[in-house]
Amino acid sequence: MSVGKPLRGIFISFEGGDGSGKTTQIQRLADAVRTAGREVVLTREPGGSEGAEAIRGLLLEGDADRWSPITEALMMYAARADHLERTITPALERGAVVISDRFADSTMAYQGLAGALGEARVNSLHDLVVKGNEPDLTIILDLPIEVGLNRAGARSGKEQRFESKGTDFQKRVRGAFLEIAKRNPKRCVVVDASGDMDSVTQRILAETKNRLPVIDI
Amino acid sequence: MSVGKPLRGIFISFEGGDGSGKTTQIQRLADAVRTAGREVVLTREPGGSEGAEAIRGLLLEGDADRWSPITEALMMYAARADHLERTITPALERGAVVISDRFADSTMAYQGLAGALGEARVNSLHDLVVKGNEPDLTIILDLPIEVGLNRAGARSGKEQRFESKGTDFQKRVRGAFLEIAKRNPKRCVVVDASGDMDSVTQRILAETKNRLPVIDI
Repeated sequence: MSVGKPLRGIFISFEGGDGSGKTTQIQRLADAVRTAGREVVLTREPGGSEGAEAIRGLLLEGDADRWSPITEALMMYAARADHLERTITPALERGAVVISDRFADSTMAYQGLAGALGEARVNSLHDLVVKGNEPDLTIILDLPIEVGLNRAGARSGKEQRFESKGTDFQKRVRGAFLEIAKRNPKRCVVVDASGDMDSVTQRILAETKNRLPVIDI
Repeated sequence: MSVGKPLRGIFISFEGGDGSGKTTQIQRLADAVRTAGREVVLTREPGGSEGAEAIRGLLLEGDADRWSPITEALMMYAARADHLERTITPALERGAVVISDRFADSTMAYQGLAGALGEARVNSLHDLVVKGNEPDLTIILDLPIEVGLNRAGARSGKEQRFESKGTDFQKRVRGAFLEIAKRNPKRCVVVDASGDMDSVTQRILAETKNRLPVIDI
């Protein structure tokens, strides 16, 4: 970090299906960024701010059909607006590197492209809330559905609304993330999340170094 | 009610500032409609369905600045989507008369025209959620701000986020409702809510009879 040069915050999001190893990989990238001398703010969606976490509570508990697709998307974007205003933007303004476990691409994948809501309606909400505040880099962890579901099967708890929708749906979600990456090649990178954790970490660090040399990891 | 003719539900919303007497007047209109032989479903916003009431809890508690204008509007429309799908539409489909204490005009008045969000963003949300499901009749109870605030002052409780915003704001809200009525003359009627309750009831019953002869009150 050179003296007298104002820091500029950097916003990184991680996306991918269940069991893709996001949690571990985010921690490892955060460690590398901290070692490079930057403040790191780890956050997640839905949630990441006090209000958004309260909305998360409503969103993730209950039956799979508790909320209709449009209601769910409106709540997701309400939480996202709060998260952007209260957590992400202030952190970027003070020069931090923000790493979010999921962001807007999850709504486009789960509700828009794979779900019943459709792309146009998600785009309307996106324009209202996020436009101009997209991540600088989105890392999409990709792996075959069967591997992801096996890994995720070890977990349990009440926050399972999205994991209970079946293999066909998970396949559509995987395809949706790949489609999003194709449409946004400057922002998105797809990382193969199969194989051992250390290899995946090396791929993520290499891609981050390449795409965001300013972090100097 | 004639034999063999399928019933068609009717959707009536009440709007107006605090202390305009909505609660009492809604009960009286409901009594008159029931006497005319129709099923009445009384409901309210934000809320009116299980999910929407849960969102209402988040919306109305806490400080006046707990939610930003866009977050608030997204949550309002999430609650409204749930309310429409789970309460209003099923009731209309079985032929009931639905009377809602507030509906979409409240968001346009409080957040769109009087608040910081602006009309265009509220219209985007409206098009996503409500378009084509507007009320058949909207009764706007109008009275001078001072009278309304005096009446409302008697109440207390934790659901005061919108009442705590001051007299200037309440004046803009009153103006906003009058503007909405002017723009939607077929749907909206402004009823003078000053004076004694019985006279206001007579005005409401007369307007309803005139605008919705099918109810036959």
